[in-house]
Amino acid sequence: MPDLIQSLLGAMHFQEGRQAVLEQPQFQVPFLLDYLAVFLWAVSGAIVGMHKRYDFAGVLVVALLASTGGSLIRDGIFLQQTPPVLSNPWYIPVIITATMLVGLFRRRITRMALVDRVVDVIDGIGVPAFAIVGLQLSLQQGIPLPGVVLVGVTNGVGGGILRDLLVGDTPAALQPGTIFVSGVILICLLFLVLTLGFGVSKEWAAWGMIVLFFTIRMLSIRYNWRTHPVLKGPPGTS
Amino acid sequence: MPDLIQSLLGAMHFQEGRQAVLEQPQFQVPFLLDYLAVFLWAVSGAIVGMHKRYDFAGVLVVALLASTGGSLIRDGIFLQQTPPVLSNPWYIPVIITATMLVGLFRRRITRMALVDRVVDVIDGIGVPAFAIVGLQLSLQQGIPLPGVVLVGVTNGVGGGILRDLLVGDTPAALQPGTIFVSGVILICLLFLVLTLGFGVSKEWAAWGMIVLFFTIRMLSIRYNWRTHPVLKGPPGTS
Amino acid sequence: MPDLIQSLLGAMHFQEGRQAVLEQPQFQVPFLLDYLAVFLWAVSGAIVGMHKRYDFAGVLVVALLASTGGSLIRDGIFLQQTPPVLSNPWYIPVIITATMLVGLFRRRITRMALVDRVVDVIDGIGVPAFAIVGLQLSLQQGIPLPGVVLVGVTNGVGGGILRDLLVGDTPAALQPGTIFVSGVILICLLFLVLTLGFGVSKEWAAWGMIVLFFTIRMLSIRYNWRTHPVLKGPPGTS
Repeated sequence: MPDLIQSLLGAMHFQEGRQAVLEQPQFQVPFLLDYLAVFLWAVSGAIVGMHKRYDFAGVLVVALLASTGGSLIRDGIFLQQTPPVLSNPWYIPVIITATMLVGLFRRRITRMALVDRVVDVIDGIGVPAFAIVGLQLSLQQGIPLPGVVLVGVTNGVGGGILRDLLVGDTPAALQPGTIFVSGVILICLLFLVLTLGFGVSKEWAAWGMIVLFFTIRMLSIRYNWRTHPVLKGPPGTS
Repeated sequence: MPDLIQSLLGAMHFQEGRQAVLEQPQFQVPFLLDYLAVFLWAVSGAIVGMHKRYDFAGVLVVALLASTGGSLIRDGIFLQQTPPVLSNPWYIPVIITATMLVGLFRRRITRMALVDRVVDVIDGIGVPAFAIVGLQLSLQQGIPLPGVVLVGVTNGVGGGILRDLLVGDTPAALQPGTIFVSGVILICLLFLVLTLGFGVSKEWAAWGMIVLFFTIRMLSIRYNWRTHPVLKGPPGTS
Repeated sequence: MPDLIQSLLGAMHFQEGRQAVLEQPQFQVPFLLDYLAVFLWAVSGAIVGMHKRYDFAGVLVVALLASTGGSLIRDGIFLQQTPPVLSNPWYIPVIITATMLVGLFRRRITRMALVDRVVDVIDGIGVPAFAIVGLQLSLQQGIPLPGVVLVGVTNGVGGGILRDLLVGDTPAALQPGTIFVSGVILICLLFLVLTLGFGVSKEWAAWGMIVLFFTIRMLSIRYNWRTHPVLKGPPGTS
């Protein structure tokens, strides 16, 4: 345990203690999951934009921000790198395809509860996967652990928050509901404890965290485990 | 045609095929158009802020974001460069002047349909001009073509979207209306096809695209050509 | 006076005239004020989030953005540096502590007018202190003076504006009220005139500006000095 505290404090102070962890192979979001997540988050964004009665270009903008917003904040604002929506030439074609399919099947989509379920499943896998990518990228830059967790969580949930802000909705991620942001925070902390504190390999820890988050998320939806508002009563009153 | 596809794919994959194009002289937004566009976008932002009953400092903030928001996203978030609102010492004085003039003539401005027309004309010229600046800057950084188009479109329409979000309005650019974002996407694609695919000089292609966008925009306003919502019916229903 | 104009113009044009000023010791926000300001802005953000009936994670996100949003725009978008919320390992623990305390004392906080007063006092000291940090950092990067003022003002008031936008409120800073943004603009201009024009040391000028802003702010609250909307009448009418 003192080793764990030592290593946590070491990392908080920009020391080179995390060198060993960085030399391990990085966890990579598997090719298929990467594009599938971008595709389905674009679908979710396009559906939101469509229900706001935007035109095709407007729906496309919402799809773009929903699917790439997390990595946009991560790289463009936090880590000062070119965001993947620019450097990866396939994200935008995937997002355009998703938007066109939503437009094509607009009549059916509005009647399908299935879409919500599919988005829930992909959220359950994609959000932790991208959160861990954010953790790894910021560990590499030598950022102290609290900042590493912030980058990870933002990478996972930032797109959804930006999507809601763009269309003028209260961000769902901030409101009481099934376990989501708190679950992402939990698995980010646990990933760091496992890899930096207990020397678990990043690959194993990553998959473990994805399974854990997915399980929590599905149980929370199935049994309607919900977070509570910090303050009860109708909004705006004191 | 195979050459075109070849060069499109080449550019998508970060190859050096665009070297020849980069060695050409860059299209520069003419001095006068640059400041005129910033001035008039600041005027449009100041009018929006004034109608929200903000105070002078608040109106100035809206004017700033409306006139420089596109280049702020382009450089600050996408291309990782110092945005021109900081590096160019004349933008802020121009924006302050615009805001003060709006304040001075506030009684007249509220009764003038003329302002809308002037903003429409400057949008018709300024939006494509700045979109092409965005295309060129991202081509120079070796970004694949889909990302280049994203930067160009954002450079053109980002300021208007940020202005609307800041004051709590639904972004006009996302909603059905006269042809705007889709026109910008079109001229961005066409600019790349002409310069990279057919070897047209950037200078000529830029002016061609400005004339094309201006024509489309004016015709769309004159004959009320409007985009349609992807999904019909009142917002919020399914 | 011609010297002043000379030096102002020199700085606007990226000349090396500000070398002498840069060689002086920098004004540093005192250790205690730095963390106290972050703590109390986090408290103010957490209270806003709590009244919106967000859950704990949601309240924490609002607290984070309220307390670090100004420096996030400054470094992440304007100056292209890693923002301090990532590089300083203590900000996030301070913000989490603030959020937990707000949650713990939620019943009392809702009944205390004291909280507003404490936030007003810390705003009165913290806003000018961070504005001057923004001025110094952008002077160091050789940015022309108008951009330097923009970075300073944003550093001071950006967090409050982002907090309000995140929760869907009209940004208080933009609306008529007690003197705030215009006061920050004033002390930023005065700081530059004193240090660049009259050779006053940065340390002295910084504390002078903090005292000046605090005095203006407290007098404005005490005697209800308020800014006026540029255009009178109810919002949305012309």
